Amino acid sequence: MAAMFELCLIGIGTGNPDHLTRQGEQAIRDAELILIPRKGDNKADLADLRERIIGDVTCGDGPRIAHFDMPQRRADDGYLQGVDLWHDAIARAWLAAIAGVSPAPDKVALLIWGDPSLYDSSLRIMTRLTPRPRVRVIPGITALQALTAAHAIPINDIGAPFTVTTGRRLRDEGWPPNTSTLAIMLDADCSFQTLQADEFHIWWGAYLGMAEELLISGPLDQVRDRIRTLRAQARRDHGWIMDIYVLKKRASDGAQP
Amino acid sequence: MAAMFELCLIGIGTGNPDHLTRQGEQAIRDAELILIPRKGDNKADLADLRERIIGDVTCGDGPRIAHFDMPQRRADDGYLQGVDLWHDAIARAWLAAIAGVSPAPDKVALLIWGDPSLYDSSLRIMTRLTPRPRVRVIPGITALQALTAAHAIPINDIGAPFTVTTGRRLRDEGWPPNTSTLAIMLDADCSFQTLQADEFHIWWGAYLGMAEELLISGPLDQVRDRIRTLRAQARRDHGWIMDIYVLKKRASDGAQP
Repeated sequence: MAAMFELCLIGIGTGNPDHLTRQGEQAIRDAELILIPRKGDNKADLADLRERIIGDVTCGDGPRIAHFDMPQRRADDGYLQGVDLWHDAIARAWLAAIAGVSPAPDKVALLIWGDPSLYDSSLRIMTRLTPRPRVRVIPGITALQALTAAHAIPINDIGAPFTVTTGRRLRDEGWPPNTSTLAIMLDADCSFQTLQADEFHIWWGAYLGMAEELLISGPLDQVRDRIRTLRAQARRDHGWIMDIYVLKKRASDGAQP
Repeated sequence: MAAMFELCLIGIGTGNPDHLTRQGEQAIRDAELILIPRKGDNKADLADLRERIIGDVTCGDGPRIAHFDMPQRRADDGYLQGVDLWHDAIARAWLAAIAGVSPAPDKVALLIWGDPSLYDSSLRIMTRLTPRPRVRVIPGITALQALTAAHAIPINDIGAPFTVTTGRRLRDEGWPPNTSTLAIMLDADCSFQTLQADEFHIWWGAYLGMAEELLISGPLDQVRDRIRTLRAQARRDHGWIMDIYVLKKRASDGAQP
């Protein structure tokens, strides 16, 4: 392996191959090696999707592909320590996959679901590599953008702020003060159930941008149970689910925001 | 004009034609008419950029283009009322531009800087049209994503929230409580100057994705004056500027976040 290779993190959007940008297409064509994780569960279609995107863009004359087994995060190490050990393990898996390729590639790429800046750890894992590779980031369409596009809503009120957070935070800390709009990612537990339902409006989506896309929106008290039921059913049917939602406080007169 | 036409809002990214997604390219090709604003100031290069993108994608065999003069927002109406009147005026300008085209187009598109969901009012303006067109939204790369990609940073800390807000809010309301990461958009006044500079780290960028791109990052107390000076100079040179920044609270030991 070259002393210092380039690692390119390419945002590929949320499952719709047409989310790919021209910049992303070119970066895939320029790569000598693309690393693809195998998750060892029913998310196999995501690995397939990555290979389909590569095939589409390169017309068969593509870069080499190296698969690596995505290490499992251990739940018994505590949250932040668990993440730390997990990132170390992923860094080792990347290096092992790269070391298996000859000649040593100078341009290595990873296809990142959504955008490399948003709730993705590749930029942090990259800092564990020695020597540190040159890094290049190609932005991609996030699940949040796919959600607001599908519902045709702006994320912010006029001139107003919004906060992006996780299901864990909403569950543990409740609705943050002085906030009218919240986008929730990484929520496996329908944490919106912990809220006072008659105070909020929700825009929910799963499998965004994919053929399986599911969308529900409405006053939280009217659609909460329908989302929970549909989500559980879809998860059983597909073996996995990725979803996201936006919540807005309703005006005190109950009008839709 | 057909009783109900389709209005497609196409996110085109932040000035790099390669931010365009495949979905965006196809939507441009599918449009019968594209509306392009003329701002009547030195931002002419933005209108030019839109036409260049259309030309690129359609290889000359493109949709019709109708220009409209972007109404000016009156400062003396108060902020929210001024925005309201301004949106009405823009809606009238769209309709007048569409009415000038024969035969009446069924598919009309607007090229939206960044993403139609983020600090863009086209989705709100659209609701003022009678009859209401069918709406379609194509997500695009935002300035925030172009910024984090250029600096190769994640926007969120691990499992942590972040807030997106405006320069006006930061200036008027100060740093929001319980917040470690803030992204600031629409700031013409370097509102970061109102903060206690030794408590923050800043990642700043202007003309993101364009050849003129400017980037500065560092502890706020060390780079604040440099950003202010460079920003003022660039604004004079180009006649306009668009910039954005991310601020993070520094750890109490002064370490870089």
